[in-house]
Amino acid sequence: MYRTNTCGELRASDVNNTVTLAGWVQKVRKMGGMTFVDLRDRYGITQLVFNQETDAALCEKANKLAREYVIQVTGVVKERSNKNLTIPTGEIEIIASGLNVLNASETPPFTIEDDTDGGDDIRMKYRYLDLRRNAVRSNLELRHRMTIEVRSYLDKQKFMEVETPVLISSTPEGARDFVVPSRMNPGQFYALPQSPQTFKQLLMVSGFDRYFQIVKCFRDEDLRADRQPEFTQIDCEMSFVEQEDILNTFEGLSKHLFKSILNTEITEPFARISWHDAMKLYGSDKPDLRFGMQFVELMDIMKGHGFAVFDNANYVGGICAEGAAHYTRKQLDSLTDFVKRPQIGAKGMVYARVEADGTVKSSVDKFYSQDVLQQMKNAFRAKPGDLILILSGDDVMKTRKQLNELRLEMGSQLGLRDKNKFSCLWVVDFPLLEWSEEDERFYAMHHPFTSPKPEDIHLLDSDPGAVRANAYDMVINGVEVGGGSIRIHDSGLQNRMFKLLGFTEEQAQAQFGFLLNAFKYGAPPHGGIAYGLDRWVSLFAGLDSIRDCIAFPKNNSGRDVMIDAPSVIDQAQLDELHLSINLQEQ
Amino acid sequence: MYRTNTCGELRASDVNNTVTLAGWVQKVRKMGGMTFVDLRDRYGITQLVFNQETDAALCEKANKLAREYVIQVTGVVKERSNKNLTIPTGEIEIIASGLNVLNASETPPFTIEDDTDGGDDIRMKYRYLDLRRNAVRSNLELRHRMTIEVRSYLDKQKFMEVETPVLISSTPEGARDFVVPSRMNPGQFYALPQSPQTFKQLLMVSGFDRYFQIVKCFRDEDLRADRQPEFTQIDCEMSFVEQEDILNTFEGLSKHLFKSILNTEITEPFARISWHDAMKLYGSDKPDLRFGMQFVELMDIMKGHGFAVFDNANYVGGICAEGAAHYTRKQLDSLTDFVKRPQIGAKGMVYARVEADGTVKSSVDKFYSQDVLQQMKNAFRAKPGDLILILSGDDVMKTRKQLNELRLEMGSQLGLRDKNKFSCLWVVDFPLLEWSEEDERFYAMHHPFTSPKPEDIHLLDSDPGAVRANAYDMVINGVEVGGGSIRIHDSGLQNRMFKLLGFTEEQAQAQFGFLLNAFKYGAPPHGGIAYGLDRWVSLFAGLDSIRDCIAFPKNNSGRDVMIDAPSVIDQAQLDELHLSINLQEQ
Repeated sequence: MYRTNTCGELRASDVNNTVTLAGWVQKVRKMGGMTFVDLRDRYGITQLVFNQETDAALCEKANKLAREYVIQVTGVVKERSNKNLTIPTGEIEIIASGLNVLNASETPPFTIEDDTDGGDDIRMKYRYLDLRRNAVRSNLELRHRMTIEVRSYLDKQKFMEVETPVLISSTPEGARDFVVPSRMNPGQFYALPQSPQTFKQLLMVSGFDRYFQIVKCFRDEDLRADRQPEFTQIDCEMSFVEQEDILNTFEGLSKHLFKSILNTEITEPFARISWHDAMKLYGSDKPDLRFGMQFVELMDIMKGHGFAVFDNANYVGGICAEGAAHYTRKQLDSLTDFVKRPQIGAKGMVYARVEADGTVKSSVDKFYSQDVLQQMKNAFRAKPGDLILILSGDDVMKTRKQLNELRLEMGSQLGLRDKNKFSCLWVVDFPLLEWSEEDERFYAMHHPFTSPKPEDIHLLDSDPGAVRANAYDMVINGVEVGGGSIRIHDSGLQNRMFKLLGFTEEQAQAQFGFLLNAFKYGAPPHGGIAYGLDRWVSLFAGLDSIRDCIAFPKNNSGRDVMIDAPSVIDQAQLDELHLSINLQEQ
Repeated sequence: MYRTNTCGELRASDVNNTVTLAGWVQKVRKMGGMTFVDLRDRYGITQLVFNQETDAALCEKANKLAREYVIQVTGVVKERSNKNLTIPTGEIEIIASGLNVLNASETPPFTIEDDTDGGDDIRMKYRYLDLRRNAVRSNLELRHRMTIEVRSYLDKQKFMEVETPVLISSTPEGARDFVVPSRMNPGQFYALPQSPQTFKQLLMVSGFDRYFQIVKCFRDEDLRADRQPEFTQIDCEMSFVEQEDILNTFEGLSKHLFKSILNTEITEPFARISWHDAMKLYGSDKPDLRFGMQFVELMDIMKGHGFAVFDNANYVGGICAEGAAHYTRKQLDSLTDFVKRPQIGAKGMVYARVEADGTVKSSVDKFYSQDVLQQMKNAFRAKPGDLILILSGDDVMKTRKQLNELRLEMGSQLGLRDKNKFSCLWVVDFPLLEWSEEDERFYAMHHPFTSPKPEDIHLLDSDPGAVRANAYDMVINGVEVGGGSIRIHDSGLQNRMFKLLGFTEEQAQAQFGFLLNAFKYGAPPHGGIAYGLDRWVSLFAGLDSIRDCIAFPKNNSGRDVMIDAPSVIDQAQLDELHLSINLQEQ
């Protein structure tokens, strides 16, 4: 071992011990015949002292050190005269008697500090140096700790981790599958799984009863800020359960994580809201409930008074921002600009302030009497000093989504979205099917194995769009951390689903044959959930992007700029795979 | 929840409780107005009783059940008159009062029993049914338990699990890489990692200090019985350590697994043997030390007596099988046939029995005097009743390997390779380089980052083939469960290595550029090890193939016959990837 101790563990109680440390040079300072070196490793920083008077040669050697040199130092632990109580080792220093340079370092392209001077691109190129920064490494420590706790909890609940294959087969609908040519089976391809969905259902057919896996999944799609071509799921499935059992079990897992990782005790059951109410009250299937500002619909009150925008709208609704009447015209204009951005797409915004005397002053006063405005105020239960913001539009769902963006923006502006506060929620009763105007057919909102709610099964033929599913999402602070469903285990019902989704029997067989076959041999009632680990870690770490909790992430073009992947491969490799590339077709 | 209890937990103390169970029908037996059903789930089997007299309709319903039906049953726990003490629930039975068929089952294609009537092919095609068998599921339970214990131990030792990317880049020497075309980067490919080697070394450069990962790795190569295209490694790396530290740490992990999984306390340090001695004494770099039968070299004794086979050989050596002098001529002939098989390739075998009176009777008596034969006997320290088996050949290493096969065969025949006995061993001091006669150049025996032993560095130029590496394998019962090395962290030494391996500077840069760059910024001394999880689980489970501890394995052609992967993909998918297939080139 190159060391007796780490750079994070020596304390006043170690004074007078002779120790050997090893690590990276964080900083070198010369001060009146003394050279001070901050030595860093994963565990902390320890101050080393080299004394010109005691050992000039050694001190000279220390003077040649530079940032990020790797050194080994022997010396005696002494109490500092000038204590630094901001770090755990700040009461001591090492009076060095030996110095061994284990490796030199070129000057790193950016500073290895919490506040680095390196931009995003250079830090990604030199990710191995970026990972030296505490701020980055601590996210990965958190990730490690969370997976340890997830496994510990699920193991105690008798879940078994089972590895499902990474090299599987592509499905006709798997347009976003990564494929892998097989050298041993020329012309044939494996596919990388977008999720282990079918395998975990097979494991339930196999009687595994409780399965989980922390597993890489893959999707070859255009990447947004919060997506990676490879991502990690906490994938779970249980047999002989109803929806309530799954919600309870995984609420338990979540509470365990909050307690063990954040030391936050959540005693109350998670809030539950139906998808229908979530859309109506928040315009989102993943509402951020750290704050209120529920939508109030105003069709009855605001229509028919001559304001054409509202009169012609199919949706008029708004939010009340408590105590925000002080917003200036400039701030309000900028909010209007915000909702009019193409990503949001509103045509405009109406606002109204509740004055100190209770009267309402709005941007559409010429159309509305104070009496109507008071009705509106009452609908919001608005108080003097509150600000009311109203959107309208032709398309109810679209307008609600715009209002959702406005609500989140106001929550942020008013400081209501504290990263250290957590609001956990189950969104339940998702619609089973989604109608596609374009394709004039229904699609499964989750996947074709999701079970309808038993009480809605009678609507499957008469009004399929109204059928709700036994499907649920876990939402924390407006982030969908996980989602799942009870699966269909009855083959008659499964066949009805396939018919509804426009599958012929042959198509269903081609796409899901091995699962349908498996279901012939005694499938138990089952259901499950899958969490996005990257998202969950980001949320606990208070990060804005999942990238910061991934050791070696890819950029928006799916590239790893550090190793320069993907890249061209040898012709010989292509030949062996019997493949050729036709770029001219582009 | 569909049940109050599992099928494995009810005991005499539960008598008179009303319970609900759910599971699969293992067996239905009718006996004098009663119907007995064995109900099975992952946790055990419970006997259900339906009484024709008490409830004829219910009993009628039970009579219609068949193997693998999924049912839910309510009833009262009663003490059995006819106890079955071979199963934990054998003291009780459930007097059923309610029966709900949750799912019917077609007759399964083979019996769901420990001793099934299904052959290998049909069981693989219906793997989801095969997994219902206790014998198969228990291997996966063991696998789960082992990974839980590995993580628990390493976490306590401050190792952090870090996920490294699955989509990486191919290297020119990565002929066995699986490649993955990127839709977003046409004409470019990711590669799947054969191991996270470079990434774990980067993590050491990043100061992660102690890393591990239980991770899928991939190799597109012709498969032998004990290989899979995707396999799982326990991958580990440590900084600021010497070889001794790594051996100690991972001997600790192994002992923890033996204790926690097999309840076997290993108090002694693992045996250590140099690669050189392992080859000399056992003809293998992974000797099975559950039994002795060390090789004895006989060149001095046996040459020069007119037996041309030995006189012309560059190696003459043998083993002594204690107490096997009773082997018949037929048995000895069959051993001769064994070593002459093309896979082994010996030309013949000489044998000698030590008679009760101490004289030696050999198959080459006409060439050797009893005096010489006695010298030989003494060399083996053979006793009356022992059998001596001798091989010879031109090529020392080849002959040793043949003798290794013979030794293992004799160990098996004499019952010396008990699956419940474990012999753990470190093989150390591997050669750094391997000379390829074909290519007339040296190759790295492990990989080009393996460190030579400091005391051998002076031989790098004068006698590179004699340089030993700081490399080690952990061998249990003749199975290499893991291997690793101390890495080079000095760039000067690294450059010498590349030169020895025939790399130009450009080639080294093209192939390992990002790692070499990283090493410029302060690489700590580091080293590590990687275990084959599949092999380790197989070993603990006493399996002959790693396939049996993998939930969904692939066959020798790399095919998953259950899901029929790999398979052809849509033209549209190929077009999107700008690829075409040229099978005619075959």
